[in-house]
Amino acid sequence: MLLSVRLLCCLGLLFVATGDSALRAQEAAKREFAIVIHGGAGRAPSSGKGRQAKEAALESALTKGRDMLAAGATSIDTVEAVLRILEDAPSVNAGRGAVMNTAGGHELDATIMDGQSRACGSVGGLTTVRNPISLARKVMEKTPHVLLVTDGAEKFADQFTVEDGIERVPNSYFTTDARRAEWKRLLEKSADPPQPMGTTGCACLDKFGNLAAGTTTGGTANKLHGRLGDSPITGAGTYADNRTCAVSCTGVGEDFIRYAVAYDINARMRYAGQSLAEASHAVLNTPGQLVRGGLVSLDAQGNIAMEFNTGAMSRAAADSTGWWEIHVAD
Amino acid sequence: MLLSVRLLCCLGLLFVATGDSALRAQEAAKREFAIVIHGGAGRAPSSGKGRQAKEAALESALTKGRDMLAAGATSIDTVEAVLRILEDAPSVNAGRGAVMNTAGGHELDATIMDGQSRACGSVGGLTTVRNPISLARKVMEKTPHVLLVTDGAEKFADQFTVEDGIERVPNSYFTTDARRAEWKRLLEKSADPPQPMGTTGCACLDKFGNLAAGTTTGGTANKLHGRLGDSPITGAGTYADNRTCAVSCTGVGEDFIRYAVAYDINARMRYAGQSLAEASHAVLNTPGQLVRGGLVSLDAQGNIAMEFNTGAMSRAAADSTGWWEIHVAD
Repeated sequence: MLLSVRLLCCLGLLFVATGDSALRAQEAAKREFAIVIHGGAGRAPSSGKGRQAKEAALESALTKGRDMLAAGATSIDTVEAVLRILEDAPSVNAGRGAVMNTAGGHELDATIMDGQSRACGSVGGLTTVRNPISLARKVMEKTPHVLLVTDGAEKFADQFTVEDGIERVPNSYFTTDARRAEWKRLLEKSADPPQPMGTTGCACLDKFGNLAAGTTTGGTANKLHGRLGDSPITGAGTYADNRTCAVSCTGVGEDFIRYAVAYDINARMRYAGQSLAEASHAVLNTPGQLVRGGLVSLDAQGNIAMEFNTGAMSRAAADSTGWWEIHVAD
Repeated sequence: MLLSVRLLCCLGLLFVATGDSALRAQEAAKREFAIVIHGGAGRAPSSGKGRQAKEAALESALTKGRDMLAAGATSIDTVEAVLRILEDAPSVNAGRGAVMNTAGGHELDATIMDGQSRACGSVGGLTTVRNPISLARKVMEKTPHVLLVTDGAEKFADQFTVEDGIERVPNSYFTTDARRAEWKRLLEKSADPPQPMGTTGCACLDKFGNLAAGTTTGGTANKLHGRLGDSPITGAGTYADNRTCAVSCTGVGEDFIRYAVAYDINARMRYAGQSLAEASHAVLNTPGQLVRGGLVSLDAQGNIAMEFNTGAMSRAAADSTGWWEIHVAD
């Protein structure tokens, strides 16, 4: 009985997989490149006064990424350039505009990964590097390591200059009036209210068929000093492998570490034969696994998934067929 | 044609899985509890003068773990107690006897995970906590976070006492003559020679059917200040899930992060229907994936796997049937 049920399941999966593959193969011919961006999971579609600034940041980042890919840039260069724009935008939780920790300071985390070589680099707990995503790339390219944190990462940054893309700023550069007000509200309350989670990330497919992904964040508002979430962890918040997909996540970082969410999408595709859409949906909706947040992902055919279970997610996508969409969440 | 080949593969897997399951079910009846420990991947079975001390440490840890499990202790308590013994043993690369970083100091990393609740806690870059595995457990049990690093983790430790299992020591406590000599040899050479990798870890199945795993290390000899490897990363160096397995890894930490090795064994079991032995072997031997090191793992039936691709690995295992084995590597 068990045998026959399992056999039926296998056959069912075969038909689904075959149908999906044919569909994807058909669509693939149209997609030379694709890009997907998130600006963090949130509670609801945006209607407030912050909407315009967030939408402008996403539009600026998406335009840059689409234009680079159309001009033949690599996916890894595009991910870095797109995330530098979002780090510089005060309306999202990365770089300038990052949330504050319990001490009223900023600690920034980022990861970048190349799906062709599976090279990756991450930084955690940065305090003076304007663009953490660029230092993550330096870790990937200039060290035998994949993760440098806090003082050690700051010291590593000392060898680079503005010309290398590594500009240094005082910690107060990252503060905005809105974040300071949010921090004061949090301090006044005994329990933390649920917070919007504004981490930003990007995944790209370039004209050479290579995938890349990156994530950059200020972490969770009112976090303990020294806390790292999923954004500086390859496999948790970010993953890229040409054989499967490129993924960037946002949400309660602890959940994403516990279930290695970005890697899990890759594993479901490789081992269970799931499509990108199936895998991206399943990892956020498995009974007995609490994963609060969202993600964007993209496969080697340029299929894109944007999943979340928080009510809304700021997100943007474009590809070589002319597809273009932007949604903003609070 | 594709359909029929895939169908045959599926049928083949079904028969293998059924055969394995029957075998494991048969053996499971005999195993009330099981424990497996590693003392790091190495180049060759040990024949040198360090052999005796390492073997004594493994024997002491294995005896403690087996006796606790036999007396009805939980797997999570046992993992912590076993790893405290190895952290206190100067012959392995964890706690006292940890390797030195480029600056001649020690930075310690650890993770612990409960397979029943999938709760986990990690610490990275500790400098004054005698038993990092116990502080990792405090992160798991006393904070909403799963990973605290460097100064923030040290500050978190300040609220606990020796009675809580958190003793503070000067950084020099971790230094041994052997490690200082090794560090000097490394400094004198322009390129790093391949190093033995003496991280320690443990996985347990208790009488209640619950799995747990933990890993603790001094990291890689001559690492950059602020470098984290796989040991403080849930999913990379450590994983535990009652539905599949408990795993602890050792080796080139960067490889284990890049391929989320501990989580991957769990994923292969869940999604590809592989046995513990198949999954543990495959993750270290997949073409195109360079993963240098070893691991110990254990499933809910008390099956144990000890895999490595480095020539040798210090390891020890015991279970309720009387099985007892210890091997020491250099």
